[in-house]
Amino acid sequence: MQKSLLLVSSSRTHGDTYLSHALPQVRELLVGVQTLVFVPFARPGGLTWDEYTEVPRSVFAELGIQVKGIHQFDNIPQGAAEAEAIFIGGGNTFLLLQDLYATGAFPVIQERVLQGMPYMGTSAGSNVAGLTISTTNDMPIVYPPTFEAFGFVNFNLNPHFIPGKLLPEHKGETREDRIHEFHHLPRNTQPVLGIREDSMLSLQKGKLDLIGQSPAVLFRQGRPDLEIEPGVDLSKLL
Amino acid sequence: MQKSLLLVSSSRTHGDTYLSHALPQVRELLVGVQTLVFVPFARPGGLTWDEYTEVPRSVFAELGIQVKGIHQFDNIPQGAAEAEAIFIGGGNTFLLLQDLYATGAFPVIQERVLQGMPYMGTSAGSNVAGLTISTTNDMPIVYPPTFEAFGFVNFNLNPHFIPGKLLPEHKGETREDRIHEFHHLPRNTQPVLGIREDSMLSLQKGKLDLIGQSPAVLFRQGRPDLEIEPGVDLSKLL
Repeated sequence: MQKSLLLVSSSRTHGDTYLSHALPQVRELLVGVQTLVFVPFARPGGLTWDEYTEVPRSVFAELGIQVKGIHQFDNIPQGAAEAEAIFIGGGNTFLLLQDLYATGAFPVIQERVLQGMPYMGTSAGSNVAGLTISTTNDMPIVYPPTFEAFGFVNFNLNPHFIPGKLLPEHKGETREDRIHEFHHLPRNTQPVLGIREDSMLSLQKGKLDLIGQSPAVLFRQGRPDLEIEPGVDLSKLL
Repeated sequence: MQKSLLLVSSSRTHGDTYLSHALPQVRELLVGVQTLVFVPFARPGGLTWDEYTEVPRSVFAELGIQVKGIHQFDNIPQGAAEAEAIFIGGGNTFLLLQDLYATGAFPVIQERVLQGMPYMGTSAGSNVAGLTISTTNDMPIVYPPTFEAFGFVNFNLNPHFIPGKLLPEHKGETREDRIHEFHHLPRNTQPVLGIREDSMLSLQKGKLDLIGQSPAVLFRQGRPDLEIEPGVDLSKLL
């Protein structure tokens, strides 16, 4: 069975409410789904798992979908095993990956998604769908057992992508500088797709599409960066 | 013997040349030093070790100090063992820490600095002087064997500190959000000092000073953030 993915850059865009910019794609991904299993491990702002699981509840209720936290099953791997569809929310990517491994959820989610269970992620939840978390923007607040992620797509993601210097007088690296440094290391051969906050990737029936208002940027080792316009078929990256 | 440290937030400030804002403190740290051993492992922009070692050469030549790369000794641990003083340059903190361990330099540098060898760092080189690299801003382009760093000071650093949202419409976390997420984890009990790009920390004769034009911010677990003005004695943080 084919993978079915929705990888959203940011759960909110400027002036919009939670997930409102992604609702058509969420509906498409979750058609027929009655209960969505939510993975709250990334804990933005230090929310507890219970608190974070409440955040998406009302949006999905409007779609007629119930939300249940993966930690609210008898055990967490079982939550992944029984899920009709899974949604991994944003927050800290290191903490998320750490707890995906520590709870035993990782291999079960991976296997189910490869078998065709619908998967959606926002921000950190999109990051972990790539090959590694080595192009996250997050602070490494915990040391996970590896940076290896699900590998549902054959590249790395950089969510919340924003080009250039944010403040002209600041000397910290730009996002592009950071991703170029990733590619200066010979071992880092995978492409990186930087997706703006209004954008998302949808994989349906073997076709990978960029959806949104702004171009993404494709970074490749030893090759020029490439702007990708929304609507372009990215399936060759799979 | 007492530690002698200079931890610079950024090797350049806006409109200034390399290290020019830190020259009085560099002179003070390196009085009597003839050869400075430079550690180029952080490789900003993918520079080679040789290329990066050329960057500080002219500035130190003006002070009458010769620069030698730690990789230009017969072996790297020996370079650390023979150094009169050491300077770890900025770049990518993960790559730096990885190569400090991989080359065998880490324990030798650590021991020598604890015995009183002068140490200076900029950016990533200042980060690794703290307890862990868990509050770096850098992208995790390699997976180091640990996040544990030298621990020359009893807290973590956040160089290139800049408060607030850099772009009002962007949804990525602010620097404060990220450091607060670090402290939401019970195990992360150490304070974090965010130092602005014009600032540095100097440890001489057991006294730790903040030097620069802008306040630093001290983040502590479960306590309010505290602005620290330049000139304040920070020795209680040691």
